[in-house]
Amino acid sequence: MRLARLLCLAVIALSMGSSACASGIVQDGEFNFVKAQHLEQWSEQDKQIDTKLAEIREKQGGKRPNILYILIDDVGFGEFGIPELNYVRGTQTPRINKLSDEGLSFMRMYTEPSCTPTRTAMMTGRHPVRTGLEEVKVALIGEGLPKNEVTIAEVLSKAGYATVHIGKWHMGDIKESYPHNQGFDFAAFPLNQQVQLSLMTEDAERSNAMTGYVKSSYTDKFALDKKFKPFGLVTGVEAYKGKDAHEVDMEAGEQWNQEKYNDMNLRYQRQTLEQLRSLAKQEKPFFLQYWPLIPLNFVRSDREQFNMQNGGTMVESMNQLDGWVGEILDELDKLGIADNTLVVLMGDNGPFLRGYQKITGMSDMIYRGGKADHLEGGVRVNAFARWPAAIKPDTLAGDMIHVSDLYTTFARLGGATKYIPTDRIIDGIDQTALLLEGEGNGRRDYVYIYEGVVLRSIVKQKFKMHMPAPGVPGAAAPVFDIARDPREMTPLIEAALWSGASFQDMLKRHMMGVKKYPHSKGGSDKPYEGIDNLRPETLDAVETFMSWH
Amino acid sequence: MRLARLLCLAVIALSMGSSACASGIVQDGEFNFVKAQHLEQWSEQDKQIDTKLAEIREKQGGKRPNILYILIDDVGFGEFGIPELNYVRGTQTPRINKLSDEGLSFMRMYTEPSCTPTRTAMMTGRHPVRTGLEEVKVALIGEGLPKNEVTIAEVLSKAGYATVHIGKWHMGDIKESYPHNQGFDFAAFPLNQQVQLSLMTEDAERSNAMTGYVKSSYTDKFALDKKFKPFGLVTGVEAYKGKDAHEVDMEAGEQWNQEKYNDMNLRYQRQTLEQLRSLAKQEKPFFLQYWPLIPLNFVRSDREQFNMQNGGTMVESMNQLDGWVGEILDELDKLGIADNTLVVLMGDNGPFLRGYQKITGMSDMIYRGGKADHLEGGVRVNAFARWPAAIKPDTLAGDMIHVSDLYTTFARLGGATKYIPTDRIIDGIDQTALLLEGEGNGRRDYVYIYEGVVLRSIVKQKFKMHMPAPGVPGAAAPVFDIARDPREMTPLIEAALWSGASFQDMLKRHMMGVKKYPHSKGGSDKPYEGIDNLRPETLDAVETFMSWH
Repeated sequence: MRLARLLCLAVIALSMGSSACASGIVQDGEFNFVKAQHLEQWSEQDKQIDTKLAEIREKQGGKRPNILYILIDDVGFGEFGIPELNYVRGTQTPRINKLSDEGLSFMRMYTEPSCTPTRTAMMTGRHPVRTGLEEVKVALIGEGLPKNEVTIAEVLSKAGYATVHIGKWHMGDIKESYPHNQGFDFAAFPLNQQVQLSLMTEDAERSNAMTGYVKSSYTDKFALDKKFKPFGLVTGVEAYKGKDAHEVDMEAGEQWNQEKYNDMNLRYQRQTLEQLRSLAKQEKPFFLQYWPLIPLNFVRSDREQFNMQNGGTMVESMNQLDGWVGEILDELDKLGIADNTLVVLMGDNGPFLRGYQKITGMSDMIYRGGKADHLEGGVRVNAFARWPAAIKPDTLAGDMIHVSDLYTTFARLGGATKYIPTDRIIDGIDQTALLLEGEGNGRRDYVYIYEGVVLRSIVKQKFKMHMPAPGVPGAAAPVFDIARDPREMTPLIEAALWSGASFQDMLKRHMMGVKKYPHSKGGSDKPYEGIDNLRPETLDAVETFMSWH
Repeated sequence: MRLARLLCLAVIALSMGSSACASGIVQDGEFNFVKAQHLEQWSEQDKQIDTKLAEIREKQGGKRPNILYILIDDVGFGEFGIPELNYVRGTQTPRINKLSDEGLSFMRMYTEPSCTPTRTAMMTGRHPVRTGLEEVKVALIGEGLPKNEVTIAEVLSKAGYATVHIGKWHMGDIKESYPHNQGFDFAAFPLNQQVQLSLMTEDAERSNAMTGYVKSSYTDKFALDKKFKPFGLVTGVEAYKGKDAHEVDMEAGEQWNQEKYNDMNLRYQRQTLEQLRSLAKQEKPFFLQYWPLIPLNFVRSDREQFNMQNGGTMVESMNQLDGWVGEILDELDKLGIADNTLVVLMGDNGPFLRGYQKITGMSDMIYRGGKADHLEGGVRVNAFARWPAAIKPDTLAGDMIHVSDLYTTFARLGGATKYIPTDRIIDGIDQTALLLEGEGNGRRDYVYIYEGVVLRSIVKQKFKMHMPAPGVPGAAAPVFDIARDPREMTPLIEAALWSGASFQDMLKRHMMGVKKYPHSKGGSDKPYEGIDNLRPETLDAVETFMSWH
């Protein structure tokens, strides 16, 4: 790491710009190794970018860009933004297709393989393994995003941004993890996720989408444990920064059902529009993130939405969400803020497959694998960035980018790089050059792919090594050419023996950083604290949980 | 079939137009069954189409459209025409992408699963099983397209079209099968195919793409049969209608190699351009088909072409061919005939996989399977139709279409429907309405998929039944929802039990036609007759072949 430090100091000497490197941010050994090969060029480019950003800001009356970040749950690569693939899947996403035409499409956006990890990477700019936060389970867990992580909301907030979170959060059920305690001025979100909200219902049981959860679904006289099934979970809450949260639209003793899930989705859409209107009036720029719950949906409803060839619950819900995205983009136009608002829309990981395809209509169409897999199908998503004042429309970029890069890039655009912590590794790379200058200006040609705490793959350029299982020699690790073999079916083995040593070096550079900056401990606490109206059944569930912790 | 006849007569009574039905063409029972549900509507639409075609013709100075048909070998769905998928595969096909923007993209074009069958279906408008022609092998075979088949070249020729064939033919090595004996005024083509031309060479042996063919590659003192390996095959020939063919660019005793293959490809490209220039000068409209040999290519050359991320021999050759397509389209512009020339460009079947992926860079990216498979990956291709005078640009159509439909459709556009034979089943459906009126005006919602002589799948709308193996009860046949499951991985079984009887009915309607109009016998003769300069080694090969026939 000493080399990297020296290099970074060299860059600081060369430039007083606000780029990530110049600010003393600690990055992965692999990035430092690549950066050393482009030092002068990137430093020069960073100066030009600072000038360009200043010019854009001047044209916008001195206002920094608003950022609207829409993260869509469990939708695989190709499900929106490419009209021809709408035909393959028998669906329609006209509004997102149009958004893609109006901005830059990242053709190689990598996420983490699952919800909590991707959201954590975006929020903290770090691989989730470093934060100690693993995938958050469906019911009470007493864990979450620790307060010592510095989220992008905190970073932008310090720099004077108004910050709002609407929709899925999924980073823990403890007080310190709540979005309004992690940098957001206001947040409306469910405490848990869609397994509770769309599967743990009578409706899902009737649809044969879920079995055994509903109390009346079967009788088992041998069941001694009456606490085996989780009941009484908190549903949606709302809160202002630092205040207690309040559960909404749920009475004591009331049963959650699909209708209430549909209502919740409609409410988040409505609240996003309301927030936009309110934020547009403020002097401050804003960071609004909308993380919808649909298209995750396992129950067919009678709504007119089911009107496409595919007919799957999630694919049809994706069409519904596409219309909602359209409403939001129209609202930006109406409010007159479209020109200076960076809209980033993307998927959070691969499709939710796992046996539900017949109901949901999901498929791993191009890249093999889905949610929870380190295969490309698990971590490749469509991603679009539109910012009329700065980004060229109708462009594609083949450069690699990782969801954590948004952290560092949003900070740069918001003039907030100085609030990024420098006492830990930040995996996110400043990709402002890619945004403003387009294809060929990316600063990443690698990604480490974890499943939970296990490093499962290393990608470098078009090559990908699947890490050998414990005890298996490295020489037996299969390497894939992702361009020739996007489904990772035919390992190169003998044809890629040259790459073995190179991948081992990458592993070492990464692990040197882990050694120097050990992983943090995730947050841990009594669940559901800081909610001012817990129902009796919720209090009962918490009591049960605490009885054995 | 009686019902269908009656229906057809009814249509004739309603309309004196030139549509396929009105002309007394015999079609598959399934088509008649569907047609009966749309009789009045299609009849009315056909009258409007006749008017529209007449108007277009009048605007074009009375000239019927030229037809340029480009058929690309062994390239899977998604390899060209969709810029985002260029990124997935690390390649570039900018000219074909542009062509796609200038015309109509058929999003559901079905072919037969392999070269000979697709080409036969296009040429005859019939499933190849009906013609008696199976896949033509690589070396001497003494079989081919029989003379009693009536090709689209014969049909258009009778109606006054100039007809030219350049490139791969692959419908037999007997005299009656040659393109200049099947309706083309002029033809330049290789007698066999690319296994001979790009794999049976010293170069391929050195590249480890082929093993054991070259005489010097190994010594086997136990080899008694000195005729086991095919040598002396005819390479490329040229001929005028009814005349003898002449082998070009090959001397007696000369060894075929990769350089000669590259030269042959360049020659066909040059000849296509030359033919275009010459045809444009004629009073007659023309039907020119160009069936390139590349991208099939197994040997890396030093040419600058290898300049993309993928780096596979076929993917890079596809880029080269893309540039050639661009040259041809530019030539149409230069000649001032672009407006009234229907350009149809498509693949002939799925990608050539079969173990060569590492060399060729090919992949079944979206639909599972490749060449020779009845899976969607074997029979789904990209297809584009551009005809500025008549087809709306930048449109997509989700309607089903089969390669044999081009036969009937081209005949209609050329005013040649009356020359389509009426004494046999024609599978090709007149899709002029789809071409001119766009999406939603297709007249096919089914396709029967044969592998050779075996019916392997039936597709109806978005459902596909894989035929049960002999002896397996029909109820065990898996049915797939191609929209939800484009890779045919998860059979619906219990979820699609309603469809079993419907598919059985489709099978019956199809087989009733086969019973009434039994399959023809394929052509059979002494190979290589009608070539005026056979080399001594060729004569030797023919003599060997005839010695045991």
